[in-house]
Amino acid sequence: MDILDLLKEACNQVYYQTRGLVGTKQGNEKLGRGAGGDISRRIDVVAEAAVMEIVKKHNFNPTIVAEESGTINGEDDGFLVMDAIDGTTNTSRAIPFYCCSLAYAKDVKLASVIDAAIIDLSRGDLYHASDQRGAFMNNTQIQVSKSLKFADSDNLDDILVGLNLSGASPGVIMSLLKVISNVNHIRQFGANALELCYLARGFLDAYIDIRGKIRATDLAAAYLIVKEAGGKLYSTDGLKLDSEIDNKARISFLAVSSDEIFARLADYMQISS
Amino acid sequence: MDILDLLKEACNQVYYQTRGLVGTKQGNEKLGRGAGGDISRRIDVVAEAAVMEIVKKHNFNPTIVAEESGTINGEDDGFLVMDAIDGTTNTSRAIPFYCCSLAYAKDVKLASVIDAAIIDLSRGDLYHASDQRGAFMNNTQIQVSKSLKFADSDNLDDILVGLNLSGASPGVIMSLLKVISNVNHIRQFGANALELCYLARGFLDAYIDIRGKIRATDLAAAYLIVKEAGGKLYSTDGLKLDSEIDNKARISFLAVSSDEIFARLADYMQISS
Repeated sequence: MDILDLLKEACNQVYYQTRGLVGTKQGNEKLGRGAGGDISRRIDVVAEAAVMEIVKKHNFNPTIVAEESGTINGEDDGFLVMDAIDGTTNTSRAIPFYCCSLAYAKDVKLASVIDAAIIDLSRGDLYHASDQRGAFMNNTQIQVSKSLKFADSDNLDDILVGLNLSGASPGVIMSLLKVISNVNHIRQFGANALELCYLARGFLDAYIDIRGKIRATDLAAAYLIVKEAGGKLYSTDGLKLDSEIDNKARISFLAVSSDEIFARLADYMQISS
Repeated sequence: MDILDLLKEACNQVYYQTRGLVGTKQGNEKLGRGAGGDISRRIDVVAEAAVMEIVKKHNFNPTIVAEESGTINGEDDGFLVMDAIDGTTNTSRAIPFYCCSLAYAKDVKLASVIDAAIIDLSRGDLYHASDQRGAFMNNTQIQVSKSLKFADSDNLDDILVGLNLSGASPGVIMSLLKVISNVNHIRQFGANALELCYLARGFLDAYIDIRGKIRATDLAAAYLIVKEAGGKLYSTDGLKLDSEIDNKARISFLAVSSDEIFARLADYMQISS
């Protein structure tokens, strides 16, 4: 069994099993808190069960790190890391931007992810990557934006930067003040993993979430997809991003299409790069 | 000839004539500045010509207020107000969120708009409204969100607020500091008129743009659609929003699903309501 194929099959299974629940009272029903600490809605639980079903069908038994179920030790090597629904708030109103994010890692670190699949559950677009083999959308290779150069210009007119500002503290907002006021095009669609796929395919030039609220589990698949599309991820101390993957670890990061863009953003944010 | 039907026909015409241009080098070609002062791309010009073609076909000859062409005096009563492409930056990369916005007004004021049509050019969803007759998406009536009450709770957990922060000045960002830090779910999709349609159908609970950069022409159709869906629009002095409609007038506003939400946002923004 090819693990990447399993992740893609599981993504498609989540797509089929959750379609009827999006925006419905049944799908939105709150069922208590998952292992990750967030409120679980029925759609989250159904999506996670859909992934588990595919894993079981293939007699695959890695350690599973999941938002609702927590960590389930397995007998096989490696770690299956899932955020079965990213963008739950969007699903609650049927705002068409939410995804399922699945990663397989050799070790419990972001840098150890070797296979990744993310499905845009509204459109059905399937993103995937594997280590050293590039990133793809619907099996067509994707790359981060390449056309933007700052050498001759201070002009940020055409740069698009995704920000996660939801519930950002006043301190976080102040750190982003120069980014917001200097960038002409800010975006926030409401599902981190899918926004990072937008970066990977050249829709955004950077994506920043420095609230310290995102779980490493939520980022695992997108981390590899961004890297394989030619992008880079940095922590707020200006170093290459890495993190333990577990349900409790919360991270802050900047994902960028180029080091030139990172240098500019780091300057605005007073990060020493 | 029914004017609302003409607006809807023109929206559909723009949909068909611009589909092949989205995200292409040809569609993105910059053709100088339009009458409104922004850079015109080919897709903007093609879209505006598509509307003009439908208007001419029906021998309709109102005064036209358009972003690219400026104001063209006509012999018939009333004003056709168009933003043929709202969300041009999104179209340049094929980010699937942009629209065509058309309104018919008896007089050159937002409050005089009596017919409106907006088409989501990525999905084909057609929104419309006419004075006192309600708002619709694909001919099904839509309403702003109604379920959110603050009476017993300070909880803004489930509120979604759209913000336009693109190129916002530090002063504007400071005015929004408490909104951002108190609202758990911020969104910015990148096309004002369509974001206001999202408010009208209950996807967002408020939409705020206080940068003073939006033209009244860009807002004309959405203004009626929000009102007919049960929403309200306020200026930053806490009064009901109105404005002259012309290419130069720039406005700041808050659109809300209820006065309760407005009161809360006004408090955060130190607007006396």
